[in-house]
Amino acid sequence: TDVKKIAVIAGDGIGPEVVAEAERVLKRTEEVFGYRFETEHALFGGIAIDEKGTPLPEETLTVCKSADAVLLGAVGGPKWDNNSKELRPETGLLGIRKALGLFSNLRPAVVFDCLKDASTLKPEVLEGTDLMVVRELTGGIYFGEKFRREGSQGQEAVDTCVYNVTEVERIVRQAFEIAQGRRKKLASVDKANVLETSRLWREVVNRVAPEYPDVEVEHVLVDNCAMQLLRRPASFDVIVTENMFGDILSDEAAMLTGSIGMLASASLGEGSFGLYEPVHGSAPDIAGQGLANPIATILSVALMFRTTFGYAEGADAIEAAVAEVLNAGHRTSDIAVDKSKAISTTEMGDLIVAAI
Amino acid sequence: TDVKKIAVIAGDGIGPEVVAEAERVLKRTEEVFGYRFETEHALFGGIAIDEKGTPLPEETLTVCKSADAVLLGAVGGPKWDNNSKELRPETGLLGIRKALGLFSNLRPAVVFDCLKDASTLKPEVLEGTDLMVVRELTGGIYFGEKFRREGSQGQEAVDTCVYNVTEVERIVRQAFEIAQGRRKKLASVDKANVLETSRLWREVVNRVAPEYPDVEVEHVLVDNCAMQLLRRPASFDVIVTENMFGDILSDEAAMLTGSIGMLASASLGEGSFGLYEPVHGSAPDIAGQGLANPIATILSVALMFRTTFGYAEGADAIEAAVAEVLNAGHRTSDIAVDKSKAISTTEMGDLIVAAI
Ligand SMILES: CC(C)[C@H](C(=O)O)[C@@H](O)C(=O)O
Ligand SMILES: CC(C)[C@H](C(=O)O)[C@@H](O)C(=O)O
Repeated sequence: TDVKKIAVIAGDGIGPEVVAEAERVLKRTEEVFGYRFETEHALFGGIAIDEKGTPLPEETLTVCKSADAVLLGAVGGPKWDNNSKELRPETGLLGIRKALGLFSNLRPAVVFDCLKDASTLKPEVLEGTDLMVVRELTGGIYFGEKFRREGSQGQEAVDTCVYNVTEVERIVRQAFEIAQGRRKKLASVDKANVLETSRLWREVVNRVAPEYPDVEVEHVLVDNCAMQLLRRPASFDVIVTENMFGDILSDEAAMLTGSIGMLASASLGEGSFGLYEPVHGSAPDIAGQGLANPIATILSVALMFRTTFGYAEGADAIEAAVAEVLNAGHRTSDIAVDKSKAISTTEMGDLIVAAI
Repeated sequence: TDVKKIAVIAGDGIGPEVVAEAERVLKRTEEVFGYRFETEHALFGGIAIDEKGTPLPEETLTVCKSADAVLLGAVGGPKWDNNSKELRPETGLLGIRKALGLFSNLRPAVVFDCLKDASTLKPEVLEGTDLMVVRELTGGIYFGEKFRREGSQGQEAVDTCVYNVTEVERIVRQAFEIAQGRRKKLASVDKANVLETSRLWREVVNRVAPEYPDVEVEHVLVDNCAMQLLRRPASFDVIVTENMFGDILSDEAAMLTGSIGMLASASLGEGSFGLYEPVHGSAPDIAGQGLANPIATILSVALMFRTTFGYAEGADAIEAAVAEVLNAGHRTSDIAVDKSKAISTTEMGDLIVAAI
């Protein structure tokens, strides 16, 4: 087999702990399936600010660019929250997305049977929920011009939301294709009754939709979508939306599953390159104590296998191993009902590795 | 007593039906409490497009401006959805907010005991939920410059989000004052890790906070807020946020109470003037059939009494009447468990009027 290069960014907080378990899973799949990985670690986020004076050092970008995929733990923490903009972990996150051309963020929100009770939603409402938010990740108000100026009413701040047809079309087409591989339903979310960028968005969706006649499309206003996710989560299949709306709705969708500690995400560019990371944050409050749940990061490896490498067998094996361990009743403290029986980060890693 | 002038805008869909019941409530409070109201009807929204060729006719603005308060039913419907921008009901809504200087939208989200089961959230999570979203209503990306232009990647659309310190300060101060009259907790929601307008927003909150030392303030990122509303709704008291985030979060908050058909809202300007309306929409699918629930509109009258007129006694009486009728088991079909026992819009109005 050819060697796949993976850039590994452990990051801050619980990042290093959960990434360490994911790397053991990688190793295990080399033994079992004969895959060959070459991993290279790189500094990013808060730790890069501390050690290199910038959240996204040039070397890190070089490592990522020469890799086939990136595995990211988590970044950020209170230590850097009051830094100036250029010295904040988030700035590194936006920078790496742009520099690697990761225009598409896939955020699957699924319900793990054994975690149904962890949701604040009624089980009968949640039943069958399995949706995917496809969020545009390198455009919109995140990347438009931002500045301050003096106005007649005192200082004012400006953010600019810009989308061009090319940007919208590539993410919309990707969402249609993803829907074709799923339940063939696409909800395009916008605020076309107010925003010009949303009207452009909707025009593009309507223009390309006839090329995907097997996919049923609906336009949903963002405020209504925030409601419908609560009302009828199981009725959604794929949701495609712009950057800011996607940030909000993907977190809402993740939280309603009750499985937020278990969800993986992928950020993709052109071709097969992708950055994979757990949906959860760096959880500085529990960092370094062996309390973190490594499952979302381990499932990010499965997502990487399937999406970037086409290693379906390995992906299936990882997912099956996670399911097996959970079904046997093993829980880290975040998902344990009886906290006194909770196992540690490495114990969870051991069990999953053994089950592959 | 002096005569209070109320501009009544029935609007579209179920608007006329629910407003008619609210007007009967107004009349009843004249008899019981000796208030005196002069109501003047005005065309707005879809019906104004049909009859006057514009969603917000000049006469309507004149009627509103000469009134002490505005009572609005609901506007919009599929009939006008594909109209050009100037001929859409929403354009009238944005226009009336701007023209009347209604910079603050109060969206209380409370749980009606008898409707707890209507929520998709578990009752124990919902327990004690009683929050108020204070949404900035005349600024931000809703009202910034919007345009199309040709770019190097094809046509592009631009929306501009602008806030000045004066705008932010007046809404933030109002939210602090509202919090002082409630449980003294304020969550200011922004996206300060990405947006310049959010950083300005946060600076203003931090600058004025010391003037309200009795109010506990927290800054919550918008994506996290979308999650926390689901996780711990009862922990919120007042949420203050900018226009677009407020649109999304207030709808999410309303939906999670399960009582969306029952919630009132106020849009306020400087002084005591305000526009009051139910949170629900025009529900064209059930319009004209006597199926609509008039309670949210009737409770909007109570909110008007308390907020604009200082008629606490009348407000209390309306709210008590609604509670009494609900506790006696009467339901319109939207909230009835047994639909065959549902009563009509006017029957609900009759019962509430009789209970005042
Ligand atoms: C940290 C922040 C800049 C980031 C975003 O808003 O994109 C995060 O919320 C996410 O969703 O990855
Ligand atoms: C109809 C639309 C323009 C409006 C808004 O976004 O403000 C509505 O959603 C609301 O919340 O009143």
